[in-house]
Amino acid sequence: MSFGHKHILGIEQLSADDITLILDTAESFKEVSTREIKKVPTLRGKTIINIFFEASTRTRASFEIAGKRLSADTMNISASTSAVVKGETLEDTAKNLEAMHPDIIVMRHGHSGAPHYLAERCGFSVVNAGDGAHEHPSQALLDLMTIREKKGTIEGLVVAIVGDIAHSRVARSNIYALKKMGATVRLAGPGTLLPTEIERMGAEVTTDMNTALDGADVVMMLRIQQERQGKALLPSNREYSRFYGLNPENLKLAKADALVMHPGPMNRGVEISSAVADGAQNVILDQVENGVAVRMALLYLVSGGEQLAEQSA
Amino acid sequence: MSFGHKHILGIEQLSADDITLILDTAESFKEVSTREIKKVPTLRGKTIINIFFEASTRTRASFEIAGKRLSADTMNISASTSAVVKGETLEDTAKNLEAMHPDIIVMRHGHSGAPHYLAERCGFSVVNAGDGAHEHPSQALLDLMTIREKKGTIEGLVVAIVGDIAHSRVARSNIYALKKMGATVRLAGPGTLLPTEIERMGAEVTTDMNTALDGADVVMMLRIQQERQGKALLPSNREYSRFYGLNPENLKLAKADALVMHPGPMNRGVEISSAVADGAQNVILDQVENGVAVRMALLYLVSGGEQLAEQSA
Amino acid sequence: MSFGHKHILGIEQLSADDITLILDTAESFKEVSTREIKKVPTLRGKTIINIFFEASTRTRASFEIAGKRLSADTMNISASTSAVVKGETLEDTAKNLEAMHPDIIVMRHGHSGAPHYLAERCGFSVVNAGDGAHEHPSQALLDLMTIREKKGTIEGLVVAIVGDIAHSRVARSNIYALKKMGATVRLAGPGTLLPTEIERMGAEVTTDMNTALDGADVVMMLRIQQERQGKALLPSNREYSRFYGLNPENLKLAKADALVMHPGPMNRGVEISSAVADGAQNVILDQVENGVAVRMALLYLVSGGEQLAEQSA
Repeated sequence: MSFGHKHILGIEQLSADDITLILDTAESFKEVSTREIKKVPTLRGKTIINIFFEASTRTRASFEIAGKRLSADTMNISASTSAVVKGETLEDTAKNLEAMHPDIIVMRHGHSGAPHYLAERCGFSVVNAGDGAHEHPSQALLDLMTIREKKGTIEGLVVAIVGDIAHSRVARSNIYALKKMGATVRLAGPGTLLPTEIERMGAEVTTDMNTALDGADVVMMLRIQQERQGKALLPSNREYSRFYGLNPENLKLAKADALVMHPGPMNRGVEISSAVADGAQNVILDQVENGVAVRMALLYLVSGGEQLAEQSA
Repeated sequence: MSFGHKHILGIEQLSADDITLILDTAESFKEVSTREIKKVPTLRGKTIINIFFEASTRTRASFEIAGKRLSADTMNISASTSAVVKGETLEDTAKNLEAMHPDIIVMRHGHSGAPHYLAERCGFSVVNAGDGAHEHPSQALLDLMTIREKKGTIEGLVVAIVGDIAHSRVARSNIYALKKMGATVRLAGPGTLLPTEIERMGAEVTTDMNTALDGADVVMMLRIQQERQGKALLPSNREYSRFYGLNPENLKLAKADALVMHPGPMNRGVEISSAVADGAQNVILDQVENGVAVRMALLYLVSGGEQLAEQSA
Repeated sequence: MSFGHKHILGIEQLSADDITLILDTAESFKEVSTREIKKVPTLRGKTIINIFFEASTRTRASFEIAGKRLSADTMNISASTSAVVKGETLEDTAKNLEAMHPDIIVMRHGHSGAPHYLAERCGFSVVNAGDGAHEHPSQALLDLMTIREKKGTIEGLVVAIVGDIAHSRVARSNIYALKKMGATVRLAGPGTLLPTEIERMGAEVTTDMNTALDGADVVMMLRIQQERQGKALLPSNREYSRFYGLNPENLKLAKADALVMHPGPMNRGVEISSAVADGAQNVILDQVENGVAVRMALLYLVSGGEQLAEQSA
């Protein structure tokens, strides 16, 4: 089966079959990272530019490693050194990059829709590495890969997502992805951080964390963005932790074998206690490991790669 | 024919034959960027260090891509992380880099003459990526490549350069290059930005943009550096645009098939209107595309490369 | 002989035999940097991440060049863009990197012991590129390589180290290394910068620079960290230079063929006069050159490399 998408802008545009193909491809690529020589020649001679208008360590590093393990030439541009500060429009920046013939632009941007805007106007493939509070598709895909790996399937599972839903592109991409794959999604967070439009995405919404956790197969905690505190959007860390922090007590409300997930970086003691973050149910580092494999799959598939036979990876 | 220069410090040091050889070599390299595998093994095992004491996206990215497409190992050092902030002299920084055996240092520096200073003292090749208000040779060469590509020749053309001539290394390098190749150069800008010594370079100078545009084959707009405004050097954007902005009206004064050029990043609505920037006569993105090819040629030639046969690129 | 260390955390953990093996290996690698193709395939397909929580040009560049000349995939993460600013613990940052399967993490950190902390908790090899005021092992090893190269041996030499001993990881690593190799170490500096615990390391300590220089085979000057001045830790530059600066006069107290060393970046006119820094006895750029070779050796040896036969490098 071939992959019909030139860009990865969001989960919204993908079908369940697309998602399955990505996860299958990622599984094939996963073992490359454990080889003696962690490299396949798949994208040799391709140019990948990671352009990050917002700071990021793990996502940028994960994409850069993914590109290098596929033998692509990778390059980083960060906002602080970019021409954008000189007053250039995003389209001009993109058109300039396009003129240098990159194959793929991996972009993180503070504005929702920025990668879509480029994808419509430029010839290269665009992979969205996070756009505003909109989508973060590679994160949702690595989350799904981890769930499928641990649970065998995604269909029929109950997934609780807890935290600052309103500002979370991780939440949004996961709601799309989990619904498409047949899971039930429950959202919990402070009322001010639960926008009404999210209900239209087909998730159950509650301000009571315990209701969300009850019998869940997966508990996905969101990062509390400290920079939003003191702006009346968020209570203090102590208060937040009391009502929306995951700890060994409230985790018992979920299934005994429920997975604990977090997109990182974690604020230990705030949205997640260390006992849970390091506990037997956590699959947080599996998420990170699968991130490289998922990004290898995305870079490969948008380059026109066909589904891999397991052995050819 | 072999290239007799170990460094590219400025256009001033190059002959018309040198320029022709660079443009011919760049033409040979241009199609590498359009291949399936965008890479030739030409500089495999060479070390290229891009050291930028001033921020830059496009020039640094263009040199980095050029180096990678030639299979060199490329590395970036930016001023903010450099030892210079710890009080080291430029010569000591350079001597330290030299001791690590790089083959080529691509340098941007705020002071005129900085690359020449290093070239005299160090064993590696130096490529000037912009030194103060002095020269920006790779920019002028990509401009010439674009003009030659579109017009067939440079000799006999009339080229109008409009804007902040005084502070523009792009202008200075282009005046040298265009004169050497037999073009007529007209400069237009506010009186405060038209230094008298520029006349000695053999260009016609005027404060009236229309005079410069009249019958021109090429109109090269310079970027207005916003950071110079409010310092009594520049009028407001609105005023500037009225007297020195290119728009569909005043462009009619040039030849009907005149090329519109800009080194970027553009301030749309200030020195160039969007109608012109996106119009049929603009070759602005051709300039960027040719930039990678010209930089591949420069890196190749200073490494001792001979003129390429078209097919061997 | 095989190298028994998975990490290079400090000189303290190494035996004289380990040090000799590293220096021999570095010697084998040194000529790679002078080849036409400056590259060996030794670490092809390995992932090396340089993570620097403190700014550095030369050490980071030296490790990056070393990695690239061994054909490893190298990647840089700097503190300013790192998740640490988002409140993540060092261990979580490290565990996240570990999940991406790097082979080696080269780390500089402001806190003593940070690399040891990671080495105990993570599966990758850790190479300490400087931890607080604790150790900077690759610097001491390149210093020893330079001494051995110039003097034939280290045993029996008298080495004077002058400057801010208290805050210097370079001093600490050199004291360990020189003592293990049988040299006599003399330390000189202002009393406030001479901690008493350093005497327990087996060095002779004095506040009189001339006493330290008397008959020395090697004079190693330390960088004065300007940022510590005005904090009552250091006298003015002028005063400092008078009592603890190396100049042609006091250098005469050392042996006539004494080596002058400095880890860089130098403050000319403060801890070292230009006449001495550029004089016939200085081996400062040999140190930098040997730095690449030593780092190639360290990356090779922690990856499980065996001692190289001279010709196989």
